[in-house]
Amino acid sequence: MTFELTKEFIEALETHIAEQNNQQLLAEVEELYPADISSILYELKTESAHYLFSLLDTEIGAEILANIAPTERKEFLTNFNSQEIARYIEVFDSDDAVDLLKEQPIQIREEVIGLLKDREQARFIIDLLPYDEDVAGGLMQKELVKANVNWTVNECIEEIRKQAEDVEKVYAVYVIDDDQTLLGLISLKNLVLARKNTKIGNIYDEDIHYIETFRPVEEVAEIMQRYDLEAIPVVNIQKRLLGRITIDDILDVITEKAEEDIQAISGITGEVEEDDSLWDQVKARLPWLIVGVIGSLMAATVIRLFEGELSRIAALAMFIPIMGSTGGNVGIQTASLIVQALADKTGLEISWKDRLLKIIVIAALNGLIIGLLAGIYVLIFSQTQLFWVVSLSLLMVVLLASFMGTVTPLVLNRFGINPAVASGPFITTANDLIGIGTYFLIAHFLLKL
Amino acid sequence: MTFELTKEFIEALETHIAEQNNQQLLAEVEELYPADISSILYELKTESAHYLFSLLDTEIGAEILANIAPTERKEFLTNFNSQEIARYIEVFDSDDAVDLLKEQPIQIREEVIGLLKDREQARFIIDLLPYDEDVAGGLMQKELVKANVNWTVNECIEEIRKQAEDVEKVYAVYVIDDDQTLLGLISLKNLVLARKNTKIGNIYDEDIHYIETFRPVEEVAEIMQRYDLEAIPVVNIQKRLLGRITIDDILDVITEKAEEDIQAISGITGEVEEDDSLWDQVKARLPWLIVGVIGSLMAATVIRLFEGELSRIAALAMFIPIMGSTGGNVGIQTASLIVQALADKTGLEISWKDRLLKIIVIAALNGLIIGLLAGIYVLIFSQTQLFWVVSLSLLMVVLLASFMGTVTPLVLNRFGINPAVASGPFITTANDLIGIGTYFLIAHFLLKL
Repeated sequence: MTFELTKEFIEALETHIAEQNNQQLLAEVEELYPADISSILYELKTESAHYLFSLLDTEIGAEILANIAPTERKEFLTNFNSQEIARYIEVFDSDDAVDLLKEQPIQIREEVIGLLKDREQARFIIDLLPYDEDVAGGLMQKELVKANVNWTVNECIEEIRKQAEDVEKVYAVYVIDDDQTLLGLISLKNLVLARKNTKIGNIYDEDIHYIETFRPVEEVAEIMQRYDLEAIPVVNIQKRLLGRITIDDILDVITEKAEEDIQAISGITGEVEEDDSLWDQVKARLPWLIVGVIGSLMAATVIRLFEGELSRIAALAMFIPIMGSTGGNVGIQTASLIVQALADKTGLEISWKDRLLKIIVIAALNGLIIGLLAGIYVLIFSQTQLFWVVSLSLLMVVLLASFMGTVTPLVLNRFGINPAVASGPFITTANDLIGIGTYFLIAHFLLKL
Repeated sequence: MTFELTKEFIEALETHIAEQNNQQLLAEVEELYPADISSILYELKTESAHYLFSLLDTEIGAEILANIAPTERKEFLTNFNSQEIARYIEVFDSDDAVDLLKEQPIQIREEVIGLLKDREQARFIIDLLPYDEDVAGGLMQKELVKANVNWTVNECIEEIRKQAEDVEKVYAVYVIDDDQTLLGLISLKNLVLARKNTKIGNIYDEDIHYIETFRPVEEVAEIMQRYDLEAIPVVNIQKRLLGRITIDDILDVITEKAEEDIQAISGITGEVEEDDSLWDQVKARLPWLIVGVIGSLMAATVIRLFEGELSRIAALAMFIPIMGSTGGNVGIQTASLIVQALADKTGLEISWKDRLLKIIVIAALNGLIIGLLAGIYVLIFSQTQLFWVVSLSLLMVVLLASFMGTVTPLVLNRFGINPAVASGPFITTANDLIGIGTYFLIAHFLLKL
């Protein structure tokens, strides 16, 4: 029952498309879910994808369009005119409609809204357009089932019947007063079990979670995950019910955030995937590589200052790599734990002082062990006079790198920058430089060069 | 409405506990959700936490216990005897009960199961115990509502009424035949809208997603996310309905996986958090730090081979850092894109050959740009004779690091090891060494030292 995409299947489809063999083509995809057809469209040539897509049912086409990644969708839709886009937007959920329209030029956006026959949908879209995509309002959809607190269960069920087509997934009915103020909800389960002529007012649950439109999406995700919610109602500052956010959108937010963090740590800027174009990939990697190069050239400049010492004791060069890489490794470890602690808002706010103290003790322990290990190597394979230089430098490098790894994400976070960016190449580069500088300074003083 | 934990609040609670002021204590936590009380328990001293916990309602206590992280829970429960544990397990969902019992010694596990008054719960637990936690069976719960295909809507609603207390969240009723074979489902929405005497057989949805017990959890997560499911039925190989997996468990799986990947990339082994004990943190960090040290000491040994050259041209030492760090940075970038591509199973399987070819072209472009930048630095600040050595070495280093960054995760993945481990310290260390080796070899041949 899980669909597997094969090269042979794609080739067969391309053949049917080339031969305009529509009957065979539709037979091949008929059994598939929209999400699976999306995967197929990614693999077809652009014109072939458009050809296959235009053969599909509007409903299925809409579901596919709603789930394609933004960049691919934008490219795919360049072949569509406003009439065609409007045909699909007509059956979209309002949140997906807004996402798609925001990717389009203003002119097309306005044309599409003007062309919509479903005026409620048009109004929904106009309501949602102003919200930024990183706040609750930008994730919410207008489709939901609400019931007045004075209604009976029966009236409530009639409302669901009316909304059934528009609201695909009903988890609960939101209960409001005459001013549209959110009072609570009734789960669908309780509605099924209630007697038909019971007043909603007597059976709804008042103790519910809701969220204001302006809250950041991370907060929405945290609340929904913390309290195991499959949907959360969205209200304005007066607690009027405006929409709801469903868990599938939150799942996408969490997945994207995780991918972004991993890319940030790996020193990749912007969202890029392995199958993106050559030039996109070069562009995504080059910035941090260049930062790394500049850092290393600064390290080169530091080394040049000690060229005299190096030509007298060439063995000093042997331990340049260990200073740089240990600094980098310790820095990235520390930073990633701090980034994780920053993301986990359930714990008590620990003061910077306590945090630093603990980190220094851990660093000192690690630094002593590593320093000793490298010291033993020095005694066996290099010059005894370098023992203290290498061991002491490593201890210092681990301490400094831990300090940097702690402070950088905290500072970035203060300024509203994703601290994950810090745990990657920035920390590595900075610690490379600091490590090598420390090493040569200690060598300079200990060896009285 | 979002709960904020403060130091003052915790201190107030500790005072109430010390004074055994139970009334005041319960008043403070009465309004809070179980998830929020969990956060409080984390911050209290162990005995205080146990004291507060024992005052709570069994229902609330059970929900708290079900959501505490395994390591904390195990420690917390050392103060509990089997009777106490059984009291909470009694009201647990079966999947959570099994998770908790698996953390306990076999003897306590058996005792608790023996003590359960709810024999259905005991049977559920015994059914679920054999499944590994990384397959669908290990995530599923036995609590669900099912209806025989021959029933009417009314009988189905009666069944929900009977199950209402055990099954907290009902998204759909699963439809089975007399052999318990899964035939399909009816969403709760459609059940609400259906007429009471309609036969289930006439209105259920046959075209549904389900999963076998032995499927890996990553596959469950992928399917539920792909098709926007809030629950998925779990079946055995004969398609008999055994249980269901709900989206909140999948959310936890996805979040944990993301955290693990970030820790793996950062070179932290095992799951550790910033507020874990000193020794746990040292242990989690030391292994990869030592790998890094060993790698760097191997690099030191390589450099020692070229000591003669270094004492003649001391400027060679200046570019040791850039070789190591560029190799590391390129390696980690490449590996993280490959890891991401491996995790994303929706795309067509691209052959290794195509993949490598593209990566080599990207590497060559980046390598040329970086090589040129460093070359300019050499011409200005160092000796002209090193221009070709540095530029060419950097190009080679970028190419080799890209190759390593591609092949390592692919190989690890083949052997069933989490490829994210590779994109961190392993790649960095290996590329440090390769980078420095390449540099000195090229220097040796180009400068005819």
